[in-house]
Parts: sequence; structure tokens; C-alpha cells
Amino acid sequence: MCRWMAWLGQPIPIEELLFKSPHGIVDQSLHARMGAEPTNGDGFGLGWYGSGAGPALYHSVAPAWADPNLRELASHIESPLFMVHVRAAIGSPVQQTNCHPFRDGDWLFVHNGYIADFHLLRRELMLAIDPDRFADVSGSTDTEVVFHVALTLGLKEDPIGAMERTIGLIEATASRLGIANPVQGSFGISDGDSLWAVRYASDGKPRSLFASADPESIRRLHPENERFRRLTADDRVIVSEPFSDLPGVWHEIPPSTAVTVRRGGVLESQPFEPATTSVGA
Amino acid sequence: MCRWMAWLGQPIPIEELLFKSPHGIVDQSLHARMGAEPTNGDGFGLGWYGSGAGPALYHSVAPAWADPNLRELASHIESPLFMVHVRAAIGSPVQQTNCHPFRDGDWLFVHNGYIADFHLLRRELMLAIDPDRFADVSGSTDTEVVFHVALTLGLKEDPIGAMERTIGLIEATASRLGIANPVQGSFGISDGDSLWAVRYASDGKPRSLFASADPESIRRLHPENERFRRLTADDRVIVSEPFSDLPGVWHEIPPSTAVTVRRGGVLESQPFEPATTSVGA
Amino acid sequence: MCRWMAWLGQPIPIEELLFKSPHGIVDQSLHARMGAEPTNGDGFGLGWYGSGAGPALYHSVAPAWADPNLRELASHIESPLFMVHVRAAIGSPVQQTNCHPFRDGDWLFVHNGYIADFHLLRRELMLAIDPDRFADVSGSTDTEVVFHVALTLGLKEDPIGAMERTIGLIEATASRLGIANPVQGSFGISDGDSLWAVRYASDGKPRSLFASADPESIRRLHPENERFRRLTADDRVIVSEPFSDLPGVWHEIPPSTAVTVRRGGVLESQPFEPATTSVGA
Amino acid sequence: MCRWMAWLGQPIPIEELLFKSPHGIVDQSLHARMGAEPTNGDGFGLGWYGSGAGPALYHSVAPAWADPNLRELASHIESPLFMVHVRAAIGSPVQQTNCHPFRDGDWLFVHNGYIADFHLLRRELMLAIDPDRFADVSGSTDTEVVFHVALTLGLKEDPIGAMERTIGLIEATASRLGIANPVQGSFGISDGDSLWAVRYASDGKPRSLFASADPESIRRLHPENERFRRLTADDRVIVSEPFSDLPGVWHEIPPSTAVTVRRGGVLESQPFEPATTSVGA
Repeated sequence: MCRWMAWLGQPIPIEELLFKSPHGIVDQSLHARMGAEPTNGDGFGLGWYGSGAGPALYHSVAPAWADPNLRELASHIESPLFMVHVRAAIGSPVQQTNCHPFRDGDWLFVHNGYIADFHLLRRELMLAIDPDRFADVSGSTDTEVVFHVALTLGLKEDPIGAMERTIGLIEATASRLGIANPVQGSFGISDGDSLWAVRYASDGKPRSLFASADPESIRRLHPENERFRRLTADDRVIVSEPFSDLPGVWHEIPPSTAVTVRRGGVLESQPFEPATTSVGA
Repeated sequence: MCRWMAWLGQPIPIEELLFKSPHGIVDQSLHARMGAEPTNGDGFGLGWYGSGAGPALYHSVAPAWADPNLRELASHIESPLFMVHVRAAIGSPVQQTNCHPFRDGDWLFVHNGYIADFHLLRRELMLAIDPDRFADVSGSTDTEVVFHVALTLGLKEDPIGAMERTIGLIEATASRLGIANPVQGSFGISDGDSLWAVRYASDGKPRSLFASADPESIRRLHPENERFRRLTADDRVIVSEPFSDLPGVWHEIPPSTAVTVRRGGVLESQPFEPATTSVGA
Repeated sequence: MCRWMAWLGQPIPIEELLFKSPHGIVDQSLHARMGAEPTNGDGFGLGWYGSGAGPALYHSVAPAWADPNLRELASHIESPLFMVHVRAAIGSPVQQTNCHPFRDGDWLFVHNGYIADFHLLRRELMLAIDPDRFADVSGSTDTEVVFHVALTLGLKEDPIGAMERTIGLIEATASRLGIANPVQGSFGISDGDSLWAVRYASDGKPRSLFASADPESIRRLHPENERFRRLTADDRVIVSEPFSDLPGVWHEIPPSTAVTVRRGGVLESQPFEPATTSVGA
Repeated sequence: MCRWMAWLGQPIPIEELLFKSPHGIVDQSLHARMGAEPTNGDGFGLGWYGSGAGPALYHSVAPAWADPNLRELASHIESPLFMVHVRAAIGSPVQQTNCHPFRDGDWLFVHNGYIADFHLLRRELMLAIDPDRFADVSGSTDTEVVFHVALTLGLKEDPIGAMERTIGLIEATASRLGIANPVQGSFGISDGDSLWAVRYASDGKPRSLFASADPESIRRLHPENERFRRLTADDRVIVSEPFSDLPGVWHEIPPSTAVTVRRGGVLESQPFEPATTSVGA
């Protein structure tokens, strides 16, 4: 299990959501409430867009709650679009190359969940990766392989469609090998401009995923809240689990659903259906 | 908060108690039941006596549950006397020099608990350390300072007496500075031959501490248990919290009590009373 | 031995000086030419002023040449004033709390060199630290103690004067304990606005230190150089050893000299003379 | 570039060869003399046979010269057969899963050198791995892939023959892809009983490799040397570069040669010739 969050909106100091929000993602690294496990201490990653070309990555093998560099970066970097992922390793090594977000050019990718029996599927799925990309897989997680399969199947042209083809391919491969319910999780994707999130599990019961309500509604519901008063119409957060229990602030994204967040606070929702594909070994 | 354990008995592969016991200390690093916090993921340490001169130390900043080297060492090293400590940092940095056990010559020292308002007490307590030892303090924990004060006050000649003088000194210093209830915790000490443990808190409510019952009683209570059949009369374990819930296997060490474990399975208990001392700045 | 550099000038991507300059500080971590040792692989630190309150720190125990996060930060952060330090540990532990720059509020501090027989001097020097600051010393380096003594002796009001008093105090203390030539090194200091550097050794032969010439002279000497054409009158670099061998680009700062760099490219030089002081235990 | 060493002989404290020999492997991590680079600071590994089932591994991302745990293990573990590898990463990440020795069951494997253009060859070579082993590749080095290809081609039945087939396969694959001189290096292999070493490069100029002379000759040449007096007829060391410059102590293993060391100090040498093989994609 893992937890992740993504912000798209006005440029804010990253610490606002990491350390200054009640039950923010760093707190979730130690005390997650909705996940399979409360502890996500097997490294973490921060990816952000801002100064310099493309997104920047900070990957650490320390638990997020205990990494002094994370506090430094979070309080000295502002960004209009960033993603944070805290990891529970379930078996694979704790190393920077296994930390999310994964990156390719301008694109970032995070995942909460797993590919079942990945050791049985790994070879087949790696063969579905464009041979020119094969050597780019530098860690040993299921997620990085999923990312490269998705890139092979057109992630940069059609993010949600490519994810439907990727998960379709995984399910077809798993089926061939007799593995039930291979896909579990939520996925977050960005190109620096928009944000996409997918909530899906082969067994119909995916990990939790939430989007913040539109800021106007949030402010109307909680007029006394200082923090909410600073929100603009542009601001949206996607999270594995809500930062707070305030009613009306978070909307659950339903299972088998993909959402697209665009600048200006636009949030669009659509059904997510794995597609059959002819690509493969 | 932290958790620790110590074994004195027949030489056993360290993994027996770390990985092969239900709810062993590595499991407690992730899921402690009796501590102030369930997670003890801020590094850990293993100290063992065996081949080579004096005790060996392995200190790691990784959580114990996620360090592959610990599994390697635990399954390839046998020892008749070892101590393991998993740490929850409460503010001080996660670094190897802050990992327990601390060592001086043949002696090892672990602590679960804290010195209250240590930042206010640190200077005074470091001044109570023998000036020749002052530069040996290489980390920033309260425990390392307590250890060096205890060494100054005769730990190697009279472990329990020195701990009584040390804690008496801390309480007197704290009192002078207006700090209430300065000492909390349990302490484990060894010279490679015997084992001493202290359970004490200034407020009378110290962290939990348990000793294994004598092996004969354990076997009588649980005649069907394979693992217990291998216990000999020499074997004793001291733990912050029991590995299992089996009745009769663990005896709580009462508050304000010190125990001495000697080879041959001898366990002696005595009241622990902080002593006033004239040593100091 | 260590190597450090400091930039004060127009805001630039940090990578310009770390990775895109020939023989920059990261190259010096692996191949220093002028130091006592070619390798400075025992961790490093980056301190920069920019977004957010006060300077930010990134401390790493990895060698600078091998830390992927450093490349990420360097290519995605711009700063008008930053300092980088690569460390050769000479005995003290490789841990983040021993990485330079050290920080207090708005102030940063780096050091290349050593305090001789520091284990003998540590207690005396720590007693010279303002008791309210004593608990702020969180690592085990000589440099951090020097920094806190200097803060105690007025660093923030009069940086060079405080350094003269600090080094005077160290020399007086060493003399009392029979330690010859206790101070060796160069020091870099900043408050986010100006930059101070000191080159001094008790034996008169301090570690190397250089300042970049004024940009106009540099451009006149090397009119064909693209990189130099981008320099403005504001830009100055202080380095342990030059990035390149180009003549006229670097001026050696003489032994027993302090320099002050102010915005606008102003570089002032003055003799540095340790002062006797009445502060102490 | 990297450096490695292997000991087969009487059980000795590992520190004898790591820290107590002049220019031992830890010194070579900082000051190699014969390699492409003097610094091998990108992690290291120790594999040893002794107590417990199969070989134990200690992998660390710290430079060998700076890891306090290595000193602890080396001075508290005795072994009749151990291998140490210090790494210079040349591009691939510094992480424990990239540290040598690699292990499969009772077998250990180390390598000094590289597979040229590995990013172009990686996919083809991974397809040559037994599909059941594919998911066991957990790091991103060329060496780990070579090891798993060799296991696929019979390493455990015929170590040198399997290496000849493996390198033959790599050269054939490289040739198909237009890559010249793909293999460079020396390889060390053990099953806990014997030791095999291969020195080979496609261009005929492999990395250096040496075997210690038979102990009797060493003692006769250097009768005054205390250390050598303790050698028995059983003792042999294989090293990337000699620990000392003493004449007659080290014999260079010629290029295109494989050696076998068996208990009793037996050292056998044979030509090493890459073999064509029909296995592969």
C-alpha cells in the first residue's frame, strides 16, 4: 500500500499541503487511516513543476516523516503542480529507483496499489514495452513497468485511453497465466499542465481516491476557515485519503472512474474501462 | 518511544528472536502494542557478543522491518548474548550515532523512554561527564549522555548503583531547573557476561518491561510448543513488550525495580531507588 | 580536507556552477587538485537563499558525484546566493548533522580545514558557547562548535571581528592545553545579503582560497568565452580551488586575510588577526 | 571500474585482509592504483560463508572507507571463504541491489569491468535468462544480468564452461547489434567450497587480476614477515590488484585465463575461450 497526493492550482509553498494541513501526506506516511496498512515508511518521492526544464524529482529512502531535507524543500519551493507519494514496499527493495513519481520527459506517474503476482507477470509485461524503452526501467517495482507499458501504448497522446489499454493488457496477460484480479490501485499522471487520475481494481474494489470540491463550495461550507479563504477557483487536490474530515470538502472518486483536472479548476469525470489491445510479445 | 530486547543464554542464531518469534522486535518496529506509538521506524541497532574482541555493533538508519542486511546478519550470526533496539526518534536526528546500543569497551547500553526537556538539561548533564569522556559523545541523544554520566559514576563497577546515582543526578539537576518528572524509561546494560535491566520513571509510571519466566515453567505451561522445548535452564530474555500473549511465559518487571540476569538463567530482582550524589559541575 | 564554493550575484540555476563549469565543485568531490586529499566523498551540503524564509539546506551523506537528488535540485532551483561544501571526514561520522553549511536563522557557515586535536579541545570550546545555544549543537564536527562559538562572540553583528575573537579563543585554549597550530582552514559565511570569507592557519599556511576577478576583467581576458559573456558586474564566486586554469579569472586570497563580498560585485579585503578575548568558561 | 578480492583458506577474521593488510581492498576503495579510476566509492559488498545456511551478504551504499558497520563486521566475523567488492558505478544507480556479490542459493558472483553499450544489450540479454529467473533480477547492473545468463547456461554445473558460453553469447549478441568489444573485466565465482576467477576482455586487454603465490614460496621470500608466517598451505587470495608491492607474493593471472582454487591451496589455470551457443532469443 501507499498514499499519494497531487496539487494543481495557484503556485503554493509545497509545505502548505505536506506539513501545514491536518493529516497531510507526511502524517499519512506514519498514520494512514484508509489504507491496507497505517505505515508508509519505505521511502517517498516528490515531483514538482516550476523553475528549470521539466519536472524535478526528489526521491528518498527515508520515511517521509523523518527526512529533514523534505522539510527544507517543502518550505523553500513553490509550485503550481506537484505530486507526492509515500511508499509501503510490500516486498520490493527500498531504493530511490523504486520511489515514485516515475518520470519520462515532462511526464510524472504515481501509483497506489499493486499488480498481483508481479514476479510471474514481470517478463511478459516488460516484453510489451517498446524495446527502445526497455533499458530505461531502472528499478524493480511493478509501477515502473506499468508506466513504461503505458508510455508504449500512447500515454502522452491519450493518457486515459493508454491506461485503459495498459490495464487491459495486464488483465489479458494475467488471465493467460491464470492470475486472478491482477490490478489494484489508483494512478496519478501529469504532463505539467493537466492532471489525470484513475481509480480501478480488477475485482471492483479499488484503493480509495478523492478530489477536493470546487473552492467556492468549500468556502461556503466552512466560511470561518482561514486556509480555505485563500483557495482560488484554480485549485484542486487529488488524494489517496482526505487530509481532514470536514464534510463537503472531499468527493470520493467512484471505482472504475478516471478524472481529468485542467487549469482553471476544471474537473471532468468519465468511466474507466480496460481495453483489449493487440500489442504484446 | 522505542522497543528493545536482550538475550542471555545458549548461543542461538539471532534470527530466532528477531524474525522467527511471533511479534518479535522487528515486528514491534512496525506494530508495537504497548508503547506510546506503534511505529519504531527511525533506525535500529544490534549489539552482540561472540567472535572477536568485545561486542560488535550494527547500526542502521533504515527501519528494522526494511533493512535487508539485518536479515542477513540475523540468519548468519550466532550469539549467547545480544541486544536489539528499534527507535522512535521524537525529534532528534535519525543517524547511526543516535542508534542504540551505545558501547564503551565491553559494555552495551540501551534505553526506551526519554529525559524530559533534554535540550534544557543537556549542558548540565554533559558537564557531569568525566572530561576525558566528553569527546566520546558523538551523537545527540539523551541516552548517550545518560550512558556517559553512568560510566562516570561507576557503571562498570556497580551497574545498578551507578544507574541509581545517575538518575538521582538527573532528577536533582532537573529539579534545580524546574523540570518535573525528568526520567522515563527502561534501561538495558551488559558487560558480555551478565545483563542488567532497570524500569523506572520519575512519575512512577515507567515504560513496560518484561522478563521471560524460567524455561522449566514455560515448558510445563506449554508442553506442545516446539520452540520452548529447545530452551535450556540458561536462557532468559528481557523485552520492552512480550513477543507473544502466551500466559505464564512473561513476567512483568515492576516499576522502580532493577533485575540482574546471570549465566545459568539466574534472575535477581531488587528495588531501584535514585540516589543523591555529590558529583556534578 | 574539504572543498567549498559560494556564489553571490545574479540569480542563476545552481547547476551552472555545480555541473556545467569545468572542474566545478562536484568534480572536485572526486578529483580535487589542491587539497590534502583528492577525494571529498563523505557527504556534502548545499545552502541557498531564494523562495521561502531564510536559507534552505540540502544535506546528504552520499558523495556529491553520486547523488541524483543534487542534479535535480541544481537544475531546478535558481538562486542569487548559494554555498556548496563537499566533505572529507577525517574521522568524524558521515551523517547529515555533520554536513556543512551549518545554519542559524538567516546565517550559513562552511569550513575547509580542521581544529587540531579537537577531541582534547571539544569540551573547553563547547563551554565557550552561550549556554542557551549549547543544545543546538547537533553533530560532532569541529566546525559546528566553531560556528556556535562565533555566534556567541557576535558573528551576526560583526562577522570578521567575531571570527577573529573565535579563532583567538581557540588558539588561547589550545595553547593552555599544549596543542600547537590548532586552526587550519578557510571559512565561508553569509547572512543572505553579503558573503564573508576567511583564510587563516595558525602555522601561517592555510588551505587554498580564491575569488573570481571582476567580470569586466574576466571578459576582457577571455572575449571568446560564451559563459563569461553572461556575467554581470554583480557576480562573484569564492572557491577553495579554481574551477578552471584560465589566467586572470581567479585571484588567490592571501593567508591571514578576510574578504567581504557585497551585492554589486564589491569585494573588500582586510588582514585577519586572531584577537584575544576574555570570554570563556 | 571496481576492485574485488576473494579469500579461500583457514578461517580468519575478515578484518585481516580488509583493514590490517597494507593497501587492502578498503584502501583500494579510496586509492586504487591499477584501475581506470582511483576511486571506488559507490557502495560495496561483502559475502561470506560461515555460520548459518549459505553465504551471507552485507551490501552498503556508503563508500567502504566510511562505513562503520564494515569495520564492526570485519572485526567480529571469521570466515574461511569470503569475497569483497568495492564499486565505481559508471552511470548506474548506487543502491544495494546494484552491489556485488550477487547471490543465488550457495553461489556468489562479482565482476570488475563492464558490458559495453549495456543499455542497447540489456533487453536481448535478459531474454536469454531462463524465464523462471527473469523476475529475480532486482537491480540494474550489467553484472547481475551476466550472472543470471550464466546461471541459465549452467554456472552451477560447470562454472568456467558456463562463463565461456555466457561471454560467447554476449559477444554474439553484441556483434549482431554492431557493438565492438562488448566484454571487459574479471569475474569471481564461488559455491562456498571452491573459487573460480576469469580474466577476459573482448579486445584482449582485460582488467588486472592476481593470485597469491603458494604460502611456502611467500614465506621463503619474506622470512621476516610476521603475517606471512601465519599462512598455511590452504590459503589463497585472488585480487584485482595486489595488496602490497612485495616481490614474489602475487602472480598475475594472464588475459584470457580462468583459474580454479580448491581447498588445500590448489590453484589450477586454464585458457578461457568464449564459446558459441545456440541459446537465446
